Amino acid sequence: MGQKMSGQHIEQLIKIIAKFPSLGTRSARRIVLHLLKKKETLIPQLVSSLEDVYNNIKVCDICGNYDTESPCSICRSASRDGGLLCVVQDISDLWALERGGLYKGKYHILGGVLSAIEGVTPEDLNIEKLISRVEKENISEIILALPATVDGQITMHYISSLLKDKNIRVSTLAQGIPVGAELDYMDDGTIKLALDMRKRL
Amino acid sequence: MGQKMSGQHIEQLIKIIAKFPSLGTRSARRIVLHLLKKKETLIPQLVSSLEDVYNNIKVCDICGNYDTESPCSICRSASRDGGLLCVVQDISDLWALERGGLYKGKYHILGGVLSAIEGVTPEDLNIEKLISRVEKENISEIILALPATVDGQITMHYISSLLKDKNIRVSTLAQGIPVGAELDYMDDGTIKLALDMRKRL
Repeated sequence: MGQKMSGQHIEQLIKIIAKFPSLGTRSARRIVLHLLKKKETLIPQLVSSLEDVYNNIKVCDICGNYDTESPCSICRSASRDGGLLCVVQDISDLWALERGGLYKGKYHILGGVLSAIEGVTPEDLNIEKLISRVEKENISEIILALPATVDGQITMHYISSLLKDKNIRVSTLAQGIPVGAELDYMDDGTIKLALDMRKRL
Repeated sequence: MGQKMSGQHIEQLIKIIAKFPSLGTRSARRIVLHLLKKKETLIPQLVSSLEDVYNNIKVCDICGNYDTESPCSICRSASRDGGLLCVVQDISDLWALERGGLYKGKYHILGGVLSAIEGVTPEDLNIEKLISRVEKENISEIILALPATVDGQITMHYISSLLKDKNIRVSTLAQGIPVGAELDYMDDGTIKLALDMRKRL
């Protein structure tokens, strides 16, 4: 309402930005004011970066990653272990694993997890393509790095049941207390699991 | 680092968005992924809205407001009381007052408050223009709606000293307990002030 004073243009931009994840009208207003204050430099810079992304980024046909080419640089890489495939929920998970730089296999992006509540069925996910990769590529192990939630667990069970007779090792990430975390801040579920899965020193 | 996988383009966009107020790299990553997922609709929409703002929004020569024209629609408005001028720190404060729709005077945007720590001097603010407005326009009252901080108070004192011999009523917003607030959540300073300024029923 207040933005009516500055014409439709500002109001419209606030509306668009307010719909971004983790933002709302108040933070959108602050961002738009910030952009307006340094309008001459910030807006052209942002527009050209958005256009760059729009014109250059493609979805990789094989794994679902974003890259300037398809197949993406990870799928094309000869230095990565093609026998090891890490199945993640989303590209942000791939980025998280890549930031560590410790994983040297390839990826498959599922695009979500099964969810009865949100009505996500196997057809909504990249599962069919995963199975056909297993049949075509020479994969020896699949790491299911899906979230440690009920939906994530169900999805991992579903996928591993599909892979049962494919003669492939299926693993999942270890669960327990994060490195550097204090017990006091851990939830009961994690503490119970860490106790149950305790390791002999 | 992880974004290297998706080429420079995504990395660059994340960098720009991470510098927005109240955002960081993590939220910028989430926003960029959101934009990428609905790339075909969201990016062109955002770009065109940014270009609209860039091409159409000007700073009002009189009050400092953003509008499609200068003088802005508030300064031009004949239905507003030109004798009443509300001095605010920033345009977000003008928007806040306009949202309520209760204020019917005009505005003057200061562009900040005096600050010894941040090195903001009277020359950095829109004070000179305020004084010349007082001399040219027929203003009977100035409401100093600056923040209730030490810097805000100092700025209000400074401006009211400049206006001392201009035969103008200078006022400021009432301070106290906000409507609907619980005492339990108020800081000591506010409680002391509300007690000192208590009103007879």
